[in-house]
Amino acid sequence: MTRIGIIGASGYAAADLMRLVLGHPDARITALADLPEKCGPLAKLFPQFSGRIGVEVVPPDIRKLAKACDVVFLALPHTASLTYAGPLLEAGLKVIDFSADYRLKAPGLYEKVYGHKADEANLAHAVYGLPELNRRDIPGARLIANPGCYPTGAILALAPLVREGLVAPGDIIVDSKSGVSGAGRTPKLLTHFPECNESVQAYAIGSHRHQPEIVEQLGLVGKVGVEVLFVPHLAPMDRGIESTCYARLLQQLSAADIAALYRKAYENEPFIVIRDEPPSTKHVVGTNYVHIHPTVVGGRAVVSSVIDNLTKGAAGQALQNMNLLFGHDEAAGLK
Amino acid sequence: MTRIGIIGASGYAAADLMRLVLGHPDARITALADLPEKCGPLAKLFPQFSGRIGVEVVPPDIRKLAKACDVVFLALPHTASLTYAGPLLEAGLKVIDFSADYRLKAPGLYEKVYGHKADEANLAHAVYGLPELNRRDIPGARLIANPGCYPTGAILALAPLVREGLVAPGDIIVDSKSGVSGAGRTPKLLTHFPECNESVQAYAIGSHRHQPEIVEQLGLVGKVGVEVLFVPHLAPMDRGIESTCYARLLQQLSAADIAALYRKAYENEPFIVIRDEPPSTKHVVGTNYVHIHPTVVGGRAVVSSVIDNLTKGAAGQALQNMNLLFGHDEAAGLK
Amino acid sequence: MTRIGIIGASGYAAADLMRLVLGHPDARITALADLPEKCGPLAKLFPQFSGRIGVEVVPPDIRKLAKACDVVFLALPHTASLTYAGPLLEAGLKVIDFSADYRLKAPGLYEKVYGHKADEANLAHAVYGLPELNRRDIPGARLIANPGCYPTGAILALAPLVREGLVAPGDIIVDSKSGVSGAGRTPKLLTHFPECNESVQAYAIGSHRHQPEIVEQLGLVGKVGVEVLFVPHLAPMDRGIESTCYARLLQQLSAADIAALYRKAYENEPFIVIRDEPPSTKHVVGTNYVHIHPTVVGGRAVVSSVIDNLTKGAAGQALQNMNLLFGHDEAAGLK
Amino acid sequence: MTRIGIIGASGYAAADLMRLVLGHPDARITALADLPEKCGPLAKLFPQFSGRIGVEVVPPDIRKLAKACDVVFLALPHTASLTYAGPLLEAGLKVIDFSADYRLKAPGLYEKVYGHKADEANLAHAVYGLPELNRRDIPGARLIANPGCYPTGAILALAPLVREGLVAPGDIIVDSKSGVSGAGRTPKLLTHFPECNESVQAYAIGSHRHQPEIVEQLGLVGKVGVEVLFVPHLAPMDRGIESTCYARLLQQLSAADIAALYRKAYENEPFIVIRDEPPSTKHVVGTNYVHIHPTVVGGRAVVSSVIDNLTKGAAGQALQNMNLLFGHDEAAGLK
Repeated sequence: MTRIGIIGASGYAAADLMRLVLGHPDARITALADLPEKCGPLAKLFPQFSGRIGVEVVPPDIRKLAKACDVVFLALPHTASLTYAGPLLEAGLKVIDFSADYRLKAPGLYEKVYGHKADEANLAHAVYGLPELNRRDIPGARLIANPGCYPTGAILALAPLVREGLVAPGDIIVDSKSGVSGAGRTPKLLTHFPECNESVQAYAIGSHRHQPEIVEQLGLVGKVGVEVLFVPHLAPMDRGIESTCYARLLQQLSAADIAALYRKAYENEPFIVIRDEPPSTKHVVGTNYVHIHPTVVGGRAVVSSVIDNLTKGAAGQALQNMNLLFGHDEAAGLK
Repeated sequence: MTRIGIIGASGYAAADLMRLVLGHPDARITALADLPEKCGPLAKLFPQFSGRIGVEVVPPDIRKLAKACDVVFLALPHTASLTYAGPLLEAGLKVIDFSADYRLKAPGLYEKVYGHKADEANLAHAVYGLPELNRRDIPGARLIANPGCYPTGAILALAPLVREGLVAPGDIIVDSKSGVSGAGRTPKLLTHFPECNESVQAYAIGSHRHQPEIVEQLGLVGKVGVEVLFVPHLAPMDRGIESTCYARLLQQLSAADIAALYRKAYENEPFIVIRDEPPSTKHVVGTNYVHIHPTVVGGRAVVSSVIDNLTKGAAGQALQNMNLLFGHDEAAGLK
Repeated sequence: MTRIGIIGASGYAAADLMRLVLGHPDARITALADLPEKCGPLAKLFPQFSGRIGVEVVPPDIRKLAKACDVVFLALPHTASLTYAGPLLEAGLKVIDFSADYRLKAPGLYEKVYGHKADEANLAHAVYGLPELNRRDIPGARLIANPGCYPTGAILALAPLVREGLVAPGDIIVDSKSGVSGAGRTPKLLTHFPECNESVQAYAIGSHRHQPEIVEQLGLVGKVGVEVLFVPHLAPMDRGIESTCYARLLQQLSAADIAALYRKAYENEPFIVIRDEPPSTKHVVGTNYVHIHPTVVGGRAVVSSVIDNLTKGAAGQALQNMNLLFGHDEAAGLK
Repeated sequence: MTRIGIIGASGYAAADLMRLVLGHPDARITALADLPEKCGPLAKLFPQFSGRIGVEVVPPDIRKLAKACDVVFLALPHTASLTYAGPLLEAGLKVIDFSADYRLKAPGLYEKVYGHKADEANLAHAVYGLPELNRRDIPGARLIANPGCYPTGAILALAPLVREGLVAPGDIIVDSKSGVSGAGRTPKLLTHFPECNESVQAYAIGSHRHQPEIVEQLGLVGKVGVEVLFVPHLAPMDRGIESTCYARLLQQLSAADIAALYRKAYENEPFIVIRDEPPSTKHVVGTNYVHIHPTVVGGRAVVSSVIDNLTKGAAGQALQNMNLLFGHDEAAGLK
């Protein structure tokens, strides 16, 4: 039985993790900590869990967490994890971090993108927790940098092409549409219902902080410098990300060729389904699945992928990583 | 050409008023004032009006408003109107108030419900601006108390029965479902998209401040003390209120009897449509119309009405009142 | 391991049952049958189950079902179950019927409401599968009439008051708001997205076929004839039913009295949560939970309940019944 | 007073035209015809127009239309307009066609894309009714091919760049997200509420019939052969299209350069607003406006445009064309 602590219990990713752990046969939540401010009793915070989780939310205390838990999930905004990861690791715990604090490996990149000095000592051994790319490195890791939601959908959509060197590395576009929960639980005008309901809009065109994450990971996959133009959009739904990815092919390939390539690349993946038609985000909502439809138009590969931004894009993938870390069936609690 | 000023330019009712005035043949906006804090340029505040309204938002200044306007609409939260109505009236302007500050006539009722002393001098001559009830009194008024959104739909649904003394005055239930814009434009958790989207919930059961307003107006209509149990619900849509009203009949009436009664009662009303089937809020969204479907089940009248909470429930009705005040066609800018 | 067959695999209740069974530790789906027409391969029908369920959809065949299954769920429209329940029972299977065909016990009531002769022989021994009322009778049953979605929410909201004789049995109103999946999966204008999105409307006022079901069950609970005025509404969301129930109290009770009564009545129920505030449908979506908020206004009890219409209102409750039938933990696969 | 007839009164574009004409100072609807099947009385078809439009829907009759109308709008699916345009023109009427039947000018292109022989005689003189491109040719036209919804947003987003030869004509991508009303009013599974609500999906990747329309018009603008990869997506909202357009720049330009270019190109356009930030579809819903935000990322221009698919994308643009045809203020009924 893996004992789970969560720091940052008040956000949507934390809630999705609680939902999933309730269905996990070999794990349970043994500690919940709020941060930065007190978030009140769980039954008020998330009425859906009234009486279903046996612990209450308390301020984070490393010593108590070390006693109560085997692993701590940091469901925190970026820079906040920097304070907690180190002490938790020193206390002997495994750490799975939902923030971006340990995702960017290139020297200076984290500071450039997030405006804060990196925790270089721990960054050095952190593993980017995308099992489909790094499954071998995860079981031995102590600190998992859980991937961002947009990068998860985009990287999985493009990796097979980039790995094989089939596309021009300087000519990749990712056009993503995300549900509103991706913007977090803090009320603001942008995500006030009458503002974003019944509306689609682009934002952070070419300047979203997930763009360098996609670029770095695809560069590692392809062993080549890549450029990605990433444009996220807000769509009027709770959950889900659809990413339509465009990449110029370096050789002539048919839609069938490319479909075969994807089926082969992901044939043993428990959560990836290659589809013959463009998938709906609805087909994966609430699950850890990724549906991918690759095709070819003119000289371009066009790949549409869908994920649940809170599950495969955060809590589900984190649990998948935990399963690998602790030797559970990789899909435990996720099927 | 009636010259319009709006104090409180940053809310949804103000925005709906701007939208409607743009289509009014004999009125235009000549002043916009923000309150309580500065709300920035109009093109940022409401991008839909970029370049379409010739004035900018400035702090409220009674003297300037008196020069620039014939009428001022107070699109303010309750108690804020108390500060402005008096001075504007003294400056010779007509005032149409969207707040509840001049709606409740019974001595002490406003203070009891809203916890603030009433402006009794002006309350005394304010007219409750529901044209279907008080059309005669509106043209000569100086201060119009524009009705609440829920009361508009509920009162119009019940008035014909109450006026004729056909229902037990102590046994009336109003079960309303409102779009989220009714909660205003200030972001809060309740109206954060991922919280209220895909969800219905009751709130303020029997304790909403619109209940005394419905009670008082129906009492005036029926010349009898009435009791109303009012339960509002939040529904996942931008605009619209559906109210299903239940009242025990004092004599045996058929659905046809009651439909005939409603058609007769509202036969000359430009904005009321009696429907043979339960109406959808969608049928009236963006308009000043009220669709009403009255029927009988067992010994009860059941009446479903729909309005747009921002139009007939606020800005449209206010414009209808302005038309009556200034001698325009009552439906100008509203058809 | 309980082996499950489903006849009528193409609807939303069947899909929700598949979703739930995938998480059940001691049950799996061993047969899927379509009816009345072929519905094509499961991966096209419900792409969310691509590769996750090991059987394909075939025409119903009693003999094969009898071999492959321990229990068959009939996810069929009313009257269609009449054809299948008998033969399946004769073949020794347990049957859980989602339709209304075995729900109405009073002689002639089914025929009056649904216009078709009842299967009286099997109706006689069918158990109305609301575990909170009939838990004792379920384990020994052969045929379970799974309750309707609206009746589940309404009956559970009112049963404690009716059982204790605290409310006037002739003065009960149920005002319900349902997500659109309750209308089934067959496309029609009413449920075409641009028609029902952003809209609320009442329908079948006082004439919905779930009204007699609510009446009969509450009558059994209270051992008294009751009258219920039931008005359903369509709300723009996928799933969820909120029911606000109004009942005239026969004695003076406070909100605290009534809350205590409900907590006591449901203290051992695994899926019922008594809430201090009106619940949101969102708090129960995807789960088998019922959240209930009882209160008192004037002389009336007002009780708001929320359920997921496809889970507690159909597939989840059916699985709860199956758990009781086969001796599993009642909450297996549902927590 | 321009007298308007509509053939095809039962669809969403026709309804939006009716809504707009009700606010037009110099036009009114004098004939409504249904096709292909009878659509029943208007009050049932579109309850929002109960009692507001003085004519009823009858079968189309060229002679009667010729007497009652000055212009007929064909709100028909493609190929259906081929039957009506010719006879109406011969009867001396102006015709504005919402379908694609007269949009594609290149020999054989219509037949290739729509699988039906073109009406070449009338195609020859039809004018593509995008006033921002063809304003001079519209007043003298007899037959207007009203642009498609996607092409309207995409062409206006790209025309300034293509006209000036600033982008590589072979490297243009248009990624569009449309509300569901774009799919028409006929119920089907794809647009059944519980299927498309809370979901985004791509469709017709590279094969949508609006792609050749965009290609042909941009080619005429740029006097050069262009290639466009067009990928539409369905988004869970009633109305609105957001198009994010990607084009490789042939020279180095800053975001400021390109913004200046767009402001200049559209400085006299009554319905185009150049925005400093990415626009929301909500900012234009219900209006004839187009909001465009052009920027530069790396070596690519990225332009986001939003329109209401039923207004600027159909009925509003058609009315704008009618205003030009009949010498009204171009914005009459549209501001």
